[in-house]
This record gives sequence, structure tokens and C-alpha cells, in this order.
Amino acid sequence: MGLGKNYDGQDCSLARTLEIVGERWTMLVLRDCFFGVRRFTDLRAHLDVPRAVLTERLVALVESGILARSEYQAGRYEYTLTSRGLDLWPALYALAQWGENHRAPNGRRRVFTHAGCDTPIEATGFCPTCRVVPGPADLDLNPGPGMRPVRDDPVSITLRTRHRLLTPV
Amino acid sequence: MGLGKNYDGQDCSLARTLEIVGERWTMLVLRDCFFGVRRFTDLRAHLDVPRAVLTERLVALVESGILARSEYQAGRYEYTLTSRGLDLWPALYALAQWGENHRAPNGRRRVFTHAGCDTPIEATGFCPTCRVVPGPADLDLNPGPGMRPVRDDPVSITLRTRHRLLTPV
Repeated sequence: MGLGKNYDGQDCSLARTLEIVGERWTMLVLRDCFFGVRRFTDLRAHLDVPRAVLTERLVALVESGILARSEYQAGRYEYTLTSRGLDLWPALYALAQWGENHRAPNGRRRVFTHAGCDTPIEATGFCPTCRVVPGPADLDLNPGPGMRPVRDDPVSITLRTRHRLLTPV
Repeated sequence: MGLGKNYDGQDCSLARTLEIVGERWTMLVLRDCFFGVRRFTDLRAHLDVPRAVLTERLVALVESGILARSEYQAGRYEYTLTSRGLDLWPALYALAQWGENHRAPNGRRRVFTHAGCDTPIEATGFCPTCRVVPGPADLDLNPGPGMRPVRDDPVSITLRTRHRLLTPV
């Protein structure tokens, strides 16, 4: 109770979700996976997180079926979102939108546009031009007016220009 | 870096949101506020969280403008969501939906219906009958088939029957 990882006394689907994605750094790891980051080295440089923390988070995400780990070269692995992981997009987007609306004093940091029509999607994820809620594979990530370049790792540099979600960075 | 509360190296609205709502128990406190729980004693009994942790979370939520603290009797206070707090509903709902879809082996624990038409809303929050995305004040919380009564505090008992969100428990 209190400081453990689980919420055993709560029969609640929100609690069950937070047991998996509520740990510190986990949602930022997943954000990067949606951006198309796949490799430990890139995640590590972009997140600036201790190696042991990143390793632990990736192991937990693979064990819970949110990320798949696959060998792309002998002895080298990459991480991609499974269908269960892709289902986290609405939650991740909604959390980020709250920050854009309430914690972005210089304006929006990132603008998501529908790839089919180039329209910025709404806070609900809805595309007002096509009247659909596009999935992440159909969204482009664009730097917004409030973006302040604070890092110079390869992922940060790539994301300073338009980038289709889920395509490798 | 790593174990602090902030993500200073990340110029990211998701990170800014998590700095406020990403701490352990905070989202469950907010869940209860959406359910209409307003008083420390009720929150404490329903969450079964250490008193000091609950106090700390409530102070932080008031300081960040998500909850308002008001005196309802001499020396007695209650907590309600501000408009900034109400804006967290889509994120909270999306996180819970992921748990309903992937971590509810006995079926859905909670079903949210649109108060106007009694239709269960979709995972995106959309009401297919009225073709709108209702806000929390227009949603009823119903126990689902997967709900297992694990607690007997007053809030848990109240929530075993239909309850309009945001109305006092």
C-alpha cells in the first residue's frame, strides 16, 4: 500500500492501466515509440534517462505485451508497439493535449495533422475535414510555435521537421 | 534525472502533464473527484491510501489549479474539480478504457452511459446515438459485468448503482 507498484485494493481498470504505464518514464518511452524511435541507444539519448531505468521499463513493457522486441541484426534488438501498445495512443494523446492547453505558455509544442488532408486534429483526436478519428499511423507530427529546442540528440533533430508517426526515426 | 518528479530535459507537453498527474495515486484521486467524492475522509476510505500521501496529493492538485478547496462547514473542507481539472476527463477516460479492453478478464468493470439517451459511450468517448462527445457532467457511471465488490467503504457502496458523474457521492 502506498509505495508499491500495484493498487491491489482498487478493482478499477484505470488502476490496472496505471500499474503498467504509471511508472515514471514509461509514458515518455511509449511517446518515443509512437514517434518511431525503436532502438535503445536512441531512446537513451532522447530521454536522457539512466540506462538501468530504461532497461527495466523496456523489459516491463515487453512482458506486458505492449512492446515487441525483435532482432534486427545479429545481437541487436529493436522495440515496436504491438496492437495492445498502439491502443494506448488515445490516452497518450489526451494527456499531451492537457499539457498543450494548460502547460505550454509559449504556444503548442507539437501539432498533429491528419496525413490524408493535412488538417490539424482536434483535442479529441477528431479530424474536422474528414470527420474521422485517425489512428497514429495516419498522423504527422509537426513542430509547433511553442517548441523550444533543448536537446541535440539525433531523435530531437529529426523531430524538428514533419515526421509521420510510427515510421522509424 | 531519473527519480525526481520533473522531466526537465524534455520540452514536451506530455512530460509537463505527467509532472502534475503522473505521481502515484494522483490519477486515482482525480478519478474519485470525477465520481463526485469531495471529502478527505471519503477519499481516504475509498482509496485506502496513507493519510500523508493523500494530503500531499491534494495540496499539489490545489496548487496546480486542478482542484479547488472550499470550506463547507466551519473548519471542514471539500475538494472539487476546477475547469482545468475537468479538462483531464478525456485522458482519465482513455487510460481507463485501455484497462477495460486489456486488463478486465471478467468483463467491463464500469460502463459510462450518456445521460441524455442512456447509450453506452464508445472507447473514444463518442455517443453514437446523439453523435456528440459528452462531457463528464452528462455521463452516468454504471457497474459493469466485470465489477467485483472488493471494498465496503461508503463510496464503494454508493457506486454499486448508477451514479451521475460529478454529483456528490
